[in-house]
Amino acid sequence: MRAMPTRSLPRRLLLGPGPSNVHPRVLAAMGQPLLGHLDPAFLEILDRVQAGLADLFGVRAGLTLPIPTTGSGGMEACFANLLEPGDAIVVGVAGVFGTRMCEVAQRMGAQVSRVDSEWGSPLHAERVAEKVEEIRPRVVAFVHAETSTGVQQPVEAIAQAARRVDALVVLDCVTSLGGLPVSLEDWGVDAAYSGTQKCLSCPPGLSPLHFSPRALARVQARQRPVQNWYLDAGLLAGYFGEERVYHHTAPISAIFGLAEALDMIAEEGMPQRILRHQEASRSLLDGMTALGFAPLVAVDHRLPMLNALEIPEAIRESTGGEAGFRRRLLENYGVEVGGGLGPLAGRIWRVGLMGENARLTSVEALLSVLQRELR
Amino acid sequence: MRAMPTRSLPRRLLLGPGPSNVHPRVLAAMGQPLLGHLDPAFLEILDRVQAGLADLFGVRAGLTLPIPTTGSGGMEACFANLLEPGDAIVVGVAGVFGTRMCEVAQRMGAQVSRVDSEWGSPLHAERVAEKVEEIRPRVVAFVHAETSTGVQQPVEAIAQAARRVDALVVLDCVTSLGGLPVSLEDWGVDAAYSGTQKCLSCPPGLSPLHFSPRALARVQARQRPVQNWYLDAGLLAGYFGEERVYHHTAPISAIFGLAEALDMIAEEGMPQRILRHQEASRSLLDGMTALGFAPLVAVDHRLPMLNALEIPEAIRESTGGEAGFRRRLLENYGVEVGGGLGPLAGRIWRVGLMGENARLTSVEALLSVLQRELR
Repeated sequence: MRAMPTRSLPRRLLLGPGPSNVHPRVLAAMGQPLLGHLDPAFLEILDRVQAGLADLFGVRAGLTLPIPTTGSGGMEACFANLLEPGDAIVVGVAGVFGTRMCEVAQRMGAQVSRVDSEWGSPLHAERVAEKVEEIRPRVVAFVHAETSTGVQQPVEAIAQAARRVDALVVLDCVTSLGGLPVSLEDWGVDAAYSGTQKCLSCPPGLSPLHFSPRALARVQARQRPVQNWYLDAGLLAGYFGEERVYHHTAPISAIFGLAEALDMIAEEGMPQRILRHQEASRSLLDGMTALGFAPLVAVDHRLPMLNALEIPEAIRESTGGEAGFRRRLLENYGVEVGGGLGPLAGRIWRVGLMGENARLTSVEALLSVLQRELR
Repeated sequence: MRAMPTRSLPRRLLLGPGPSNVHPRVLAAMGQPLLGHLDPAFLEILDRVQAGLADLFGVRAGLTLPIPTTGSGGMEACFANLLEPGDAIVVGVAGVFGTRMCEVAQRMGAQVSRVDSEWGSPLHAERVAEKVEEIRPRVVAFVHAETSTGVQQPVEAIAQAARRVDALVVLDCVTSLGGLPVSLEDWGVDAAYSGTQKCLSCPPGLSPLHFSPRALARVQARQRPVQNWYLDAGLLAGYFGEERVYHHTAPISAIFGLAEALDMIAEEGMPQRILRHQEASRSLLDGMTALGFAPLVAVDHRLPMLNALEIPEAIRESTGGEAGFRRRLLENYGVEVGGGLGPLAGRIWRVGLMGENARLTSVEALLSVLQRELR
């Protein structure tokens, strides 16, 4: 007989780029017996989840829904609905997820123009605006909180430039939603996606998604049907709208968990939650700097929930290098931190303080472990 | 403050077309604290899940993995990888899910030829074989257990016809996996997908997926990249193969639940589990026939886990019709049964006895409720 996972799982403090730890209330909600996906009692919960997500996204109209994919599936959904083969898109790229946007759009047959900034720096809004003016694309897309670098991007200036040429704006909110202020309607963003495993502190597996009325009109006006049946916003609207027509079988337990997490966010209030993320980050940076780490990102553009820190020599040169050092933290103390990606691999750590983990206790636990190991 | 879902959820006996009820062991596994998606302890569980799914699918080679989508996303994944625009596909259609296959393939730009059978009858293997011989398509696709009609389709004869013209065979195993014998390798099936919410008795949200070595070779030989980045088998293989390269963030809690469910299937043994489904179905049909229901499907082609039953007049003519009657069962007794779809709407009920619910206690509960209501 194989060992039962429920009896043998180690405990972890998840301070990487996600998933983050989940509150026991959310786990308990997910552990409730199932309801059917057309059961009125379930649809009531789904209504609440959709309304709660709309609040977080800062929208009062359009279609807001949790789709059964991870965050990358949300990216796929936005592009699959808003792009047709041959459409032009301008993508702001300053990390892994901007790069991924280019690849996803390219595969759909779009004409991709990218405007790059150095990894660790924010997008240069004026350079993006110039490219948008030049290309006059169908879609302008970029990442709000770039998880690979810890940079917060300038949203409004780029969105305004896009609106001037009547382009639709797609924003990746995977790491920002639930931890940073998000106001899609005020900003003029037409479509956005997130993931549940970052600042919402649910398990991975759902992507909160929003399409503005303008985005939905674009989907309606397509010349060809959306290539992706599963992610077609028109079909999704049948189930996630008033009709509640069967499209796919909604992931009941994950929705229970998300409902509970959204209740907890409403109880805490977003202003307090945002403040909590900022305080935890400040405390982390103080402690890590004292240990020889250096913030990668300039102070005005740092993400509080994803702290990119250049690794001191002592760790880079320890047995097994920085990856071996992270492995020891995981195995000996149950503490997970993230490594760098792409050009930043081996050079930075990414320390996530997301949702439930954005607390001084998480910060102190990490600092204490590092002090002991570096002593 | 909004009501907490965890305090107010009604209990349901889910005897519709899925989701089915989930064993407390699976719910408990899902309620465990999270691990990171690259944590060695998590990857060990993922290894076990992939091996357990390969056992259920009856395969020893190729790529077997749980993707973070529902079953319909699994269909999307198989077609997105194996079809290129202009490719010919023959689809056997005898219900909603065969019809859906045609729509999904068409959106990808494939040339779709469909061979229809009447809803409630199995596919006519010889007619499909003739069409395959005539078209010589790239792919032949059909449904093993058609959830909309309760019919079990003839797999081997159609798969052999496809192999004779070197076509790839795609099989929908959403409702069959974990309840009927499945032997993809012996049958000559190249790609298959399932869902976790049917006979595996997990919550919805994951799609177990298999690609044979022949299917993977086809993906490698594509002229254009897979349009769908999220479901690209080559990229998925990076994470679900030996390298464990980041692609998406695996849905940790759902995988914990699936691991536990697969353990339970291994403990029971598939032969016993298959027998249990058959016995429960026989007992249901005896009781329902006595109440005036009539099986839609001829005895040799009936699915044990999804029983399609023509509704007696007493129920069709009751206040609110059959839909109102089902609503009363749900609200007054907490028992869910499914209605018909498409041409069978209003004409049949679909009574699911899937996984955990394929037991005499479920059957007796439904029969008792119906006896009381029809008295």
